Amino acid sequence: MRYVLGVDGGGTITKCLIADDKGNLLGQGIGGPSNYQVIGVRKAIDAVEMSIKEVIRIASIRKAKFEVICLGLAGVGRSIDYEVVGKALKGLNLAQKIILQHDAFIALAGATICRSGVLIIAGTGATAFGINEEGRRARANGWGFILGDEGSGYDIGQKALRAVTRAYDGRGEATLLTSRLIQYFKLKSLLDIVQRVYRDKLSRREIAALTPLVVEAAKKGDRVAILILKEAAEELATSVVAVIKNLKTEKEKLEVAITGGVFKARELILPYFKGRVKEVAPKTRFIEPRFEPAIGAIFLGLREIGVEIDDEILKRVNDSCARLGEIKGNVKK
Amino acid sequence: MRYVLGVDGGGTITKCLIADDKGNLLGQGIGGPSNYQVIGVRKAIDAVEMSIKEVIRIASIRKAKFEVICLGLAGVGRSIDYEVVGKALKGLNLAQKIILQHDAFIALAGATICRSGVLIIAGTGATAFGINEEGRRARANGWGFILGDEGSGYDIGQKALRAVTRAYDGRGEATLLTSRLIQYFKLKSLLDIVQRVYRDKLSRREIAALTPLVVEAAKKGDRVAILILKEAAEELATSVVAVIKNLKTEKEKLEVAITGGVFKARELILPYFKGRVKEVAPKTRFIEPRFEPAIGAIFLGLREIGVEIDDEILKRVNDSCARLGEIKGNVKK
Repeated sequence: MRYVLGVDGGGTITKCLIADDKGNLLGQGIGGPSNYQVIGVRKAIDAVEMSIKEVIRIASIRKAKFEVICLGLAGVGRSIDYEVVGKALKGLNLAQKIILQHDAFIALAGATICRSGVLIIAGTGATAFGINEEGRRARANGWGFILGDEGSGYDIGQKALRAVTRAYDGRGEATLLTSRLIQYFKLKSLLDIVQRVYRDKLSRREIAALTPLVVEAAKKGDRVAILILKEAAEELATSVVAVIKNLKTEKEKLEVAITGGVFKARELILPYFKGRVKEVAPKTRFIEPRFEPAIGAIFLGLREIGVEIDDEILKRVNDSCARLGEIKGNVKK
Repeated sequence: MRYVLGVDGGGTITKCLIADDKGNLLGQGIGGPSNYQVIGVRKAIDAVEMSIKEVIRIASIRKAKFEVICLGLAGVGRSIDYEVVGKALKGLNLAQKIILQHDAFIALAGATICRSGVLIIAGTGATAFGINEEGRRARANGWGFILGDEGSGYDIGQKALRAVTRAYDGRGEATLLTSRLIQYFKLKSLLDIVQRVYRDKLSRREIAALTPLVVEAAKKGDRVAILILKEAAEELATSVVAVIKNLKTEKEKLEVAITGGVFKARELILPYFKGRVKEVAPKTRFIEPRFEPAIGAIFLGLREIGVEIDDEILKRVNDSCARLGEIKGNVKK
């Protein structure tokens, strides 16, 4: 039996799966964050190693057995990143072959089962990534909170905060978001939000977590909240359209996989988002990702050792997803 | 002879002036940053004390002589701020009386020589503050880089960064800013900007310092750069208009004092800015600040001990500004 490792390294956790060449998942291991842009190479590699050690222990397999490890890591995108991180990974002596990709690449592989398509992720950050039939790749957005993550949860949360200060000053329209934020943060007065944000150092994740408040206000008809979500939908559509244009797939029946917390605001985001994409690429089919990113990494690893991802493999992956519980396979949808 | 101290405490430095009751400035002392929201009360108070000790040493005056100290500190705005900082200042036992204000208050006092009016500051941050004839106060904008400093240098710099990533992705129009930023940061490729911004932790001041690049590109007719500056002008005008409306001075000949690095983009910002304000308050007179904020604090201190800020006082302040060199009085304009 041959085995592959698949690693999904993100800003919060690192997840590692192990699979045999029949598509049976044998366990998962979790490590800390592994975005090396944020925490540095050493800590990122440590997190990867920890997740791998855990899954090897759980699956009771000897390390020497691995033919290939496929990693998709956040913060890896430029050739210099691949060099730096690739070198550090080789030092771990993990497998005969290392496939190193960025996080969106394995996410797309999981979402479309290694077929061409586009993935749009809108969580704390926002990224669009796609591959066409010829293997051409394109990416848009996902530059982070300063250089741009437009349409992300962070973007929405920050706009909510700013809408409320604008309303307070009389620079902008009154909004339900004011009372919602005062309630949410348990403030005596809105002015106390300054302390909550700066002195208490509200994290980007915490700011992104304000998105449900915006959705709630929008559902009650709040114009400011509705506009914030519409702008987010517009930004996300613009990202997908930029990828489609770069791939020159405007006329194809390309699949666009949609994922991330922002899209939970379904009726407030999706119709506008889809409409804008269809204006440019009318045959687009919108799907939910079929498998999670770590399984995308497994698929890529299996293909590397010559295993075709056929129905039989998919059935076994699916069954073991259900068995392992915490892993998201399409069986759970 | 009676003496007053005036302190201007900002995010970068703290400046302290000393004046006698005839308006003669006797020296200035400089301390570190004193925005307590950013560095905490202890360090802020230390910076204030350091600037005071220095000016007392320079002017060779005994501390016991001070009747009043007037401080304008960044980050002080809510009643809780006045309590916390006021208590710490009393512990220093500086003068018989302490006047504690926020930084925009003393800046307006310097700009208009304690008369009613509005001040708009657009540097790294952006704030509008005003007082009407009845003493009613109003403030807008200036909530910081997360909650909103719209129209500030930071806002402009960040929009420039985002315009460039949008252009790179194909999400936005091509712009001269791309080559300007690559040159400015000495990047091999635009992608290296990710490292420059996040791993090297580009400061807010450094991001605000990109404003001149936007101005340069706008002067060459770059549409993206022109739009960024127009949006900033719009935001700054909106801030002033919000203050004017809160003061109910739309119909008066109110002075609006304009200051900060963003306004150096004169012909690109000012006409639009002024036009938008005049739509709401047609009799507005736009001025440059007559004196710097620390002198505003001195004026407020002098008034507190019963000194009227008449032409004679102003002449002496002006003359000593010229003598002290580094202090900005209207004589230098």
